[in-house]
Amino acid sequence: MSDRSYAILGTGALGGFYGAKLQKAGLDVHFLLKSDYEYVSKSGLVVESKDGDFTLPQVNAYNDVTKMPQCDVVVVALKTTQNHLLPQMLPPVVKDDGVVLILQNGLAVEEEVAAIVSNVSIMGGLCFLCSNKVGAGHIRHLDYGQITLGEYAPGYDACGITEKMRQIADDFINAGISIELTEDLLLGRWKKLVWNIPYNGLSVILNARTDELMAYEHTRKLAEQLMYEVAAGAKTCDRIISDSFIQMMLDYTVKMKPYRTSMKIDHDERRSLEVEAIFGNPLRKAQAAGVNLPQINCIYQQLKFLDEKSRVDKGDKGDK
Amino acid sequence: MSDRSYAILGTGALGGFYGAKLQKAGLDVHFLLKSDYEYVSKSGLVVESKDGDFTLPQVNAYNDVTKMPQCDVVVVALKTTQNHLLPQMLPPVVKDDGVVLILQNGLAVEEEVAAIVSNVSIMGGLCFLCSNKVGAGHIRHLDYGQITLGEYAPGYDACGITEKMRQIADDFINAGISIELTEDLLLGRWKKLVWNIPYNGLSVILNARTDELMAYEHTRKLAEQLMYEVAAGAKTCDRIISDSFIQMMLDYTVKMKPYRTSMKIDHDERRSLEVEAIFGNPLRKAQAAGVNLPQINCIYQQLKFLDEKSRVDKGDKGDK
Repeated sequence: MSDRSYAILGTGALGGFYGAKLQKAGLDVHFLLKSDYEYVSKSGLVVESKDGDFTLPQVNAYNDVTKMPQCDVVVVALKTTQNHLLPQMLPPVVKDDGVVLILQNGLAVEEEVAAIVSNVSIMGGLCFLCSNKVGAGHIRHLDYGQITLGEYAPGYDACGITEKMRQIADDFINAGISIELTEDLLLGRWKKLVWNIPYNGLSVILNARTDELMAYEHTRKLAEQLMYEVAAGAKTCDRIISDSFIQMMLDYTVKMKPYRTSMKIDHDERRSLEVEAIFGNPLRKAQAAGVNLPQINCIYQQLKFLDEKSRVDKGDKGDK
Repeated sequence: MSDRSYAILGTGALGGFYGAKLQKAGLDVHFLLKSDYEYVSKSGLVVESKDGDFTLPQVNAYNDVTKMPQCDVVVVALKTTQNHLLPQMLPPVVKDDGVVLILQNGLAVEEEVAAIVSNVSIMGGLCFLCSNKVGAGHIRHLDYGQITLGEYAPGYDACGITEKMRQIADDFINAGISIELTEDLLLGRWKKLVWNIPYNGLSVILNARTDELMAYEHTRKLAEQLMYEVAAGAKTCDRIISDSFIQMMLDYTVKMKPYRTSMKIDHDERRSLEVEAIFGNPLRKAQAAGVNLPQINCIYQQLKFLDEKSRVDKGDKGDK
């Protein structure tokens, strides 16, 4: 077993699940929490999972990064809407020559992290995970769980499979988490956007599940057009997404069980939406290359309206 | 006073209002009704108006076009979602050498009518009217009321101000309805779409009033981008809409009282939406000229989803 220590920034449905699996496998894991801090320091974590339930009665819980030990691997499992906190959070907790592993959706987060910490390796992981936090320190893992892992190099140059990637993959695989290594993190991120942009966006705007979006001709068509715009965006970064990949994503979604996207769940629960990471950053990447993605832009602006209005409505209620 | 006879096809918030004003001015008016037929044949029409309330205790009411006399002017005041009925409705009721006056939103309806009846003049009227039907035969006129009137020629060639246009304008002006004559009906229709496409569309999709759409930066920007796409569509028909017209429409909407658009009202009351006339036809016009309007297309497909789903949901309820 490795002696790498892990810090989990954000112990929710995703960070809590992966962190608990790593600790169960015998690794030294340190969890940063916010609202659940008191509860989890006393009672630990409970994971209900289709792969088998388990409990960790005792975990290393923190509510302040400055109290955490410096770790070999810092897993960023916050929502991207919290990324403005990273300049304060990351420097105290990551070891020199350590790894920051970003398990978030969207584009360009690695570049933000690279501007905050130097002398570390930065990796991105694309998680295919259905998991919810159902109570304090209580995670329900519904399906999937695999991670596509890639390393970041300045300018998102593809940097092959590194030794550090292999080490981290080993830790995850030993913990029962399926890992695929990618030589090209940026291509992986754009490919994930092929699904996330149409379905996260339209599910919120049209108040619909994936099966409903695919049952109607016009939204099926719109989802496809949005996917082709994502491919056009990827092309501005010299990444090629094939037509057959797009058709596979459409077929896969038709065959999926009815699914409420993570952004729809966030919106229903009146949490902030990850609009900038998933929509704003890809738009800006393409725009920087002189390419306009008009339908993604339309979706982006609709989501910004809904997100901002939802916060105003919430604020209004709070004032009463 | 003229001796022109008028048929009003569709005695709702719009047809009922203009028809009642014409009858009150002494003209011979014949009203086609559906659900309100029994009530209106017995009790007539009531108009509450900011210009003065009035009652017509007796009107010529019909529930079948074949029972109506042939009239000099047939006013099409149905929703465009009912236009599949025009091939049955129009021929029996319009006089040879008469006029069909289409008081509907959207594009290309005159072409459809030209394919149904020949030997008539076809005119289009763009109505700026805030009016609701609040009960059987009961219309509440809230604001505005002016009509921009133009005549149709094949291919939408601009055909100047004709004598027939002047005659009809006189009838309306005598009835207290403000009329502006336009030499170019198609330009008028595209200009009206500059407002209708962003605000009707976004108000339904984002569940918002005009003031909310204009209060947020992103929807204000999106409305403007949609307006520029409408201008690009108009250009494919050789009609020029200036930037200053677009800026005027934006300013005007900011200064307007909070407004629930007609399409939003239709959606809230689970009526069919006029998606094809207002969105589908302009898209197809531009497409025929090889021009893609991607953001309008995005809105179009979202509206088609919401409209079709709303009918399915309604049907589901009916079955229970």
